Amino acid sequence: MQIIHTIKELREWRKTAGRVAFVPTMGNLHEGHLALVREARKRADHVVVSIFVNRLQFGQGEDFDKYPRTLQQDADKLSAEGVSVVFAPDEKELYPNVEQRYNVEPPHLQNELCGKFRPGHFRGVATVVSKLFNIVEPDTACFGKKDYQQLAIIKGLVEDLNINVEIVPVDTGRASDGLALSSRNQYLSGQERAEAPRLYRELNIIADALREGNLAYAELEQAAVEQLSESGWSVDYVEIRRADNLNIAHAGDKNLVVLAAARLGTTRLIDNIEVSL
Amino acid sequence: MQIIHTIKELREWRKTAGRVAFVPTMGNLHEGHLALVREARKRADHVVVSIFVNRLQFGQGEDFDKYPRTLQQDADKLSAEGVSVVFAPDEKELYPNVEQRYNVEPPHLQNELCGKFRPGHFRGVATVVSKLFNIVEPDTACFGKKDYQQLAIIKGLVEDLNINVEIVPVDTGRASDGLALSSRNQYLSGQERAEAPRLYRELNIIADALREGNLAYAELEQAAVEQLSESGWSVDYVEIRRADNLNIAHAGDKNLVVLAAARLGTTRLIDNIEVSL
Repeated sequence: MQIIHTIKELREWRKTAGRVAFVPTMGNLHEGHLALVREARKRADHVVVSIFVNRLQFGQGEDFDKYPRTLQQDADKLSAEGVSVVFAPDEKELYPNVEQRYNVEPPHLQNELCGKFRPGHFRGVATVVSKLFNIVEPDTACFGKKDYQQLAIIKGLVEDLNINVEIVPVDTGRASDGLALSSRNQYLSGQERAEAPRLYRELNIIADALREGNLAYAELEQAAVEQLSESGWSVDYVEIRRADNLNIAHAGDKNLVVLAAARLGTTRLIDNIEVSL
Repeated sequence: MQIIHTIKELREWRKTAGRVAFVPTMGNLHEGHLALVREARKRADHVVVSIFVNRLQFGQGEDFDKYPRTLQQDADKLSAEGVSVVFAPDEKELYPNVEQRYNVEPPHLQNELCGKFRPGHFRGVATVVSKLFNIVEPDTACFGKKDYQQLAIIKGLVEDLNINVEIVPVDTGRASDGLALSSRNQYLSGQERAEAPRLYRELNIIADALREGNLAYAELEQAAVEQLSESGWSVDYVEIRRADNLNIAHAGDKNLVVLAAARLGTTRLIDNIEVSL
């Protein structure tokens, strides 16, 4: 496995690499990422994993500076998974002008759900993913469903800008108690970690109700917000949306997704569950 | 020469095409375009020319509807130049959702010079060129210096989003009296056509003054505006800028470009001249 730090070397390697599957990450890899890598391996001769903590998608007051950087441990894990290349550019390599001048601007969805609480986040995601796609030129790329809104933005971006990359959604990896795997879980205290699976449990309560034909979306959402709040969470949102485009769900929609974001202490967790009726 | 109308067929052709040079156009081709094609032919096994009148880059009240569509004549000219493929998608092929949801947003330069008078124009250009690059996946692409600000935007876009396409600037084609070749020249009445070369003459007067060491940029610009206005032009701007990034020029800058846009009747003409001191 090669660790490549520059765009020039990556492009040189790419010329002879055949079919490539790509997994963009911010590093600090856990089993959730490795599931993406395993899916990628099935789909191409070579897997490229990028590790880049993208300042552009962090807001003011977010955890850009303290986001864990663990390149050596990450590389060991990826090597064991048969990855061909780790692309780990430094900030100057991707943002040589400091300021990114040309940005990929997503539609209004970028200001809903998580976007409402993280202004500029999805513009930063869409822009860096566009850049990475242009550098790696993959045939296919794997994204986790855990970041469901991000996945929707990437799918829209690829479709709308005619990017020639097949996007593969991969199921969320979970701890045995249901907590979605996330780099941010390590910020949780022991007590918070014990409380954290409630988020997924509340999503499941809504999912069960939807499957039983309950159409009182607002009430279901509100009940979950109240349960979480009473248990010490600070809730950003719990929402039932259409799975295909994340539009507001209406009675009669068959493919839904229930999404939530809430904070335990200073740690913001997100999760979601798809429901097909 | 093949005429291809769908993205799918273009991609199929692309798979085995080797090195490709690309010339994006809105059709209604004249000698200026053919100079781009000849430059492209020198640089690759195959030349792809796209013909697409891009609604996204026309403002309200601009000439989108009356913009001349002359596909058959264009194809004849391109065939004679040894072009491999004309890519001529219809509007639904490039904008299947009617609205383009994801846009490439250029920096403030998009609101200066021509951008001040054509809000949204350069966003439309940056977005459609991004789409066409993603579809054609060229190795190199030729753009005319006549649209100097467009060229600057494309160069910035490619650099900033790490697009793997070499951009080749091509000198402006001119009629024997100096008028820059443009599809819009055909809108001119006989009288306007006789007057039109004044735009380039005024640019040359400024260029000569700059070469002689005149640093009174504002006065030079103002004198040209007055000359044009007195001759019946409605002037959008005459500006001296830095050639490399189109920033405002200051005394001591060595590589300049003088740009102008002005209307004769309802026809808007642009031109520019580079000056190296």
